Amino acid sequence: MNTEEPSSAAEENANDAVFNSDTEQLVNTQEASTSYSRVNKSVHFEPVAAGSGIPQVKCYLNGVKVPRVVRIKTLFVKTIGVITAVVGGLAGGKEGPMIHSGAVVAAGISQGKSTTFNRDFKIFDYFREDHEKRDFVSGGAAAGVSAAFGAPIGGVLFSLEEGTSFWNQALTWRTFFGTVVSTFTLNFALSTYHGHPGDLSYPGLLNLGKMDPFPFQFYELPVFMLFGAIGGLLGALWNHINYKLAVFRIRYITAPWLRVVEACLVAAASATIGFLMMFILNDCRPLGEDPTKVPLQLYCADGEYNVLAAIWFQTPEASVRSLLHDPIGSYKPWSLFVFVICYFLLSTWTFGLAVSSGLFIPNLLTGAAWGRLLAIVLQYILPSNTINPAKYALIGAAAQLGGVVRMTISLTVIIIETTGQISNALPIIVTLVVAKWTGDFFNEGIYDIHIQLAAVPLLPWEPPPLAHNIYASEVMSHPVTSLRIVENVGHIVEVLKLVTYNGFPVVDPPLSDDAEVTTYKRLRGLILRSQLIVLLQNKIYNENANTTWSNYKIDMCLFRDEYPRYPSIEQLEISDWEKTCTIDLRPFMNPSPYTLPHRASLPRLFRLFRALGLRHLPIVNDVNEVVGMVTRKDIARYRVWRHRGHMGMEELQLSNEI
Amino acid sequence: MNTEEPSSAAEENANDAVFNSDTEQLVNTQEASTSYSRVNKSVHFEPVAAGSGIPQVKCYLNGVKVPRVVRIKTLFVKTIGVITAVVGGLAGGKEGPMIHSGAVVAAGISQGKSTTFNRDFKIFDYFREDHEKRDFVSGGAAAGVSAAFGAPIGGVLFSLEEGTSFWNQALTWRTFFGTVVSTFTLNFALSTYHGHPGDLSYPGLLNLGKMDPFPFQFYELPVFMLFGAIGGLLGALWNHINYKLAVFRIRYITAPWLRVVEACLVAAASATIGFLMMFILNDCRPLGEDPTKVPLQLYCADGEYNVLAAIWFQTPEASVRSLLHDPIGSYKPWSLFVFVICYFLLSTWTFGLAVSSGLFIPNLLTGAAWGRLLAIVLQYILPSNTINPAKYALIGAAAQLGGVVRMTISLTVIIIETTGQISNALPIIVTLVVAKWTGDFFNEGIYDIHIQLAAVPLLPWEPPPLAHNIYASEVMSHPVTSLRIVENVGHIVEVLKLVTYNGFPVVDPPLSDDAEVTTYKRLRGLILRSQLIVLLQNKIYNENANTTWSNYKIDMCLFRDEYPRYPSIEQLEISDWEKTCTIDLRPFMNPSPYTLPHRASLPRLFRLFRALGLRHLPIVNDVNEVVGMVTRKDIARYRVWRHRGHMGMEELQLSNEI
Repeated sequence: MNTEEPSSAAEENANDAVFNSDTEQLVNTQEASTSYSRVNKSVHFEPVAAGSGIPQVKCYLNGVKVPRVVRIKTLFVKTIGVITAVVGGLAGGKEGPMIHSGAVVAAGISQGKSTTFNRDFKIFDYFREDHEKRDFVSGGAAAGVSAAFGAPIGGVLFSLEEGTSFWNQALTWRTFFGTVVSTFTLNFALSTYHGHPGDLSYPGLLNLGKMDPFPFQFYELPVFMLFGAIGGLLGALWNHINYKLAVFRIRYITAPWLRVVEACLVAAASATIGFLMMFILNDCRPLGEDPTKVPLQLYCADGEYNVLAAIWFQTPEASVRSLLHDPIGSYKPWSLFVFVICYFLLSTWTFGLAVSSGLFIPNLLTGAAWGRLLAIVLQYILPSNTINPAKYALIGAAAQLGGVVRMTISLTVIIIETTGQISNALPIIVTLVVAKWTGDFFNEGIYDIHIQLAAVPLLPWEPPPLAHNIYASEVMSHPVTSLRIVENVGHIVEVLKLVTYNGFPVVDPPLSDDAEVTTYKRLRGLILRSQLIVLLQNKIYNENANTTWSNYKIDMCLFRDEYPRYPSIEQLEISDWEKTCTIDLRPFMNPSPYTLPHRASLPRLFRLFRALGLRHLPIVNDVNEVVGMVTRKDIARYRVWRHRGHMGMEELQLSNEI
Repeated sequence: MNTEEPSSAAEENANDAVFNSDTEQLVNTQEASTSYSRVNKSVHFEPVAAGSGIPQVKCYLNGVKVPRVVRIKTLFVKTIGVITAVVGGLAGGKEGPMIHSGAVVAAGISQGKSTTFNRDFKIFDYFREDHEKRDFVSGGAAAGVSAAFGAPIGGVLFSLEEGTSFWNQALTWRTFFGTVVSTFTLNFALSTYHGHPGDLSYPGLLNLGKMDPFPFQFYELPVFMLFGAIGGLLGALWNHINYKLAVFRIRYITAPWLRVVEACLVAAASATIGFLMMFILNDCRPLGEDPTKVPLQLYCADGEYNVLAAIWFQTPEASVRSLLHDPIGSYKPWSLFVFVICYFLLSTWTFGLAVSSGLFIPNLLTGAAWGRLLAIVLQYILPSNTINPAKYALIGAAAQLGGVVRMTISLTVIIIETTGQISNALPIIVTLVVAKWTGDFFNEGIYDIHIQLAAVPLLPWEPPPLAHNIYASEVMSHPVTSLRIVENVGHIVEVLKLVTYNGFPVVDPPLSDDAEVTTYKRLRGLILRSQLIVLLQNKIYNENANTTWSNYKIDMCLFRDEYPRYPSIEQLEISDWEKTCTIDLRPFMNPSPYTLPHRASLPRLFRLFRALGLRHLPIVNDVNEVVGMVTRKDIARYRVWRHRGHMGMEELQLSNEI
């Protein structure tokens, strides 16, 4: 039942995966609600369903399990939330939630069971492991992007750029296949809905309308760069305001009712501002060449319609489409200017609110508006050239969104796929790269900001640069609670109750029998909390060995059935007699855990954790005795502090609950 | 000078990188020519310049240094070779060599010196490390793709899908920036060359012509799948023939003159077949609506031109364009059929020949031809529908190339970017996925076949599946030659001369002074051959310590100046007196190498090597004594043998020279 003695040849592969399962495993977090849900809470049923869900998915893919992030209840609450939010006219989008929903669906399917409904279909048992499930979540998020934007390639790139910590060729092309099927299914369904079954021309939910290719000249490149720089600046400002708001929310808006009040406030403000703009600016156009389908007269004269009403009363997505496609002269510069400022502030206020909503569409809308505004200004400066407002609106939209999320290659591909026009690739790429550079000078991308706020131990891509004189002996926690290879059940129960760690080193017994097992014993292996729980639950004691154990089918199922929610130690009933029994841990422990000597530097530790997705690592001395344990949180605590060119090291205060 | 005592604060980062340099380092291969160059040899000056270069670049990026693959001499020979090959009318393309060239240029620039020209510009010293250089090579290859196909996104994806073993967000977006600059530069240069400076409309060297978007119906998807399956079958056949030819070449065509003869033979055959086809088939068309620029009459009547001459006398690239864009009815089915068979065989004969040529264009051409042929057949079967031959020619081209190289996402993006038409994405994706599935059922992609033939220790993506009962103690080589922490110079010289390993464990001295240092001593660190050479070369002995060493500036430069070609031990002159000196290795060794216990399973070893890019790993026993060493070659030897659904494990015979 261990890797040296596989129970059956067919299970070898599976065995190794579980018993070596300190690798690529998700950091199991206690159910205790976290500061993350404190940030995004108010829907009383499932707080984790608030917000766009992308930061949570990103954490999950990085190996940190935010509680309840891929549960079906989350999906339901999220779906209802996002429908009400978008229909209600909040400055939020539906794309982030769709990506999160894709991840939930994928996680659910892969498990073949639902704990919420207490149903186990007894299928896909093989996938009941953290890293298998994570692959599915990654694919699901990609499929979500693919459906949201009609961007199968963009979806794969999104899950790579934002989520996946490990590049894997096989996973990539399977994900790719999944995104293609996703787009295709949506396309087929939408085509049928629109009455043209078989005519596959509705690739995505977000359809920015087919852009014409815009030829561009060499001298326009600096203009695109300027747009990128503006986008980066505005994006950094957007992130900064949102960050301050989020901090304010964490500090003061703690009670659920306060969050409901805030959400209502935002909704009221959105509606008020919209109406005030329509009323005060009174941007009226003659009805003749109007590009909107349902023109509204409002406060305009007869035979005219209100341009701002056309923007406000559409879904934000349709407004982006209008801004991209309406002919020259459809908007007054003054209206656009006021609209940009209002919508910019409203959208940054809305994101992080206790409702399910994303930031893609609001930022595209803001960017398209200022892009179009700048096009009008350019036209005014250079009256001899014909400025194509659609081109600059698109570039502005890309720049604004790029400045906020700081994605480059995936966002480029998503925009190209959404607009169906590859010829515009170079301008968009240049814009996005400049936007990222400019924004990165001031702060991080919005998702990373929210992840930091949540105090999630997310490991960055590279080890922190100033950490070469920090050693494992400083990072590790010690003394270590370790278990003997043949351990007393009572002691195991005590340890599980007292210590919250998820992995315990298994060591040689001390030479004298009465000595307490603490540290400085020779390392023999590593055993997980979940494995111990299962062993206790099934009463696999040495004392039972003669009667039942040898016949007992201790196979993978034992450890997989309960996944991912094992009972807590308090839920197990262990009699006093049982506490005198012993368990031989050797057949179950991982006999060759990765270790590092106490003199290893932090970057070395970091690389091992990052590359192998470890969650805990025993630190040994020169003679292979356990002197400490390092967890992912210990590593993630060291973060580089960087601000306008200055750099430093800081130890973050991480949430104790994750 | 070691990580615990950094010589200066500013150098901490750099120090750690070198002294922990068992990670992410290229497997240094001896200059002794390898079986790889035996496969692709004949250009007398630089054998490694033969072939497309993509397999070599792939090996390099995986961490295996094929000798001389990124030297400037290789670039020159390759450039001349590919020009003559393409102009000479061989069935080879220029794209593979361009990708290789991009990699060479990037490697050269990053080093700021050229050993061939014996010039050192003393810039970019920081990049003189294996993993820094590899990042540049990855970017260079991507830029090569970008320039060849006008596909900046495809370039990034190519370097990810085919090359990079490690996903790194920062590297990806830098690569992306590089590919954009590459496309832009080429675009600007070509636009100027064509007399429209500033009008950026020549994005790539390979221009398949702007495709119209082809609307497709639901019922056409099975047709695309069929095309994919045919492409997969033909691709697998192409690979199989090419494999048999390569084996034949390794066995019998060993002398350089024989290879020149073979190359001449192929050239003669290409010309003969072309002329025979034009003469025998005599596919003549009236001159009126001819789509070719320079119609040739040849054996046709006056007022007519020879269709096959139009195909044969163009560059293959222009022929692909013709097949994609010529109107319906431009080709007789019989001509296309003969052309497909001839070109299929010629191209598989040409690839792997001792000339610099790629396989992209020849396979696109073959595929476009049979795609067009099938379109004619379909038109014949379904006379009521109007079949668009361009659509099926493009799908055929994608299917054939996909069947040979087995790329999915990167090839999709490259084709989309080359044809400038995103709307065709879904058909191409479906086709390529089916082509990969079908082809993978029979054999591997052509690049992997060539890498296996070269016996390069390339690690696959996943550990071999049937290896869970293979343990480190079986894989490792032992006894290990180790060095003491304070070691005698004479002994070091002896060891370096006798043992070809590149890393040596540093161990505690034995208790009794006269005992030989072999195995079972406690591990203290790891030192690299190159470090030992530099120490000997600079005579950093303990005996010199009082006089010079303490003042001697032992910094990174010492170890970087010589990179990447350190002198061999035979080139160093060590006097007899010096051999009695000792070196204290502690300040230079890596004090905390990654290790694994002897009972670790092969998959566990594999993951460590793969994820961290290790080249050698000390295996220790329970008390941290070195019992063996595992090298990358030991791991790569275990390969899964898979053939039509059957699976097994085999130990490969790997080249001893790599």
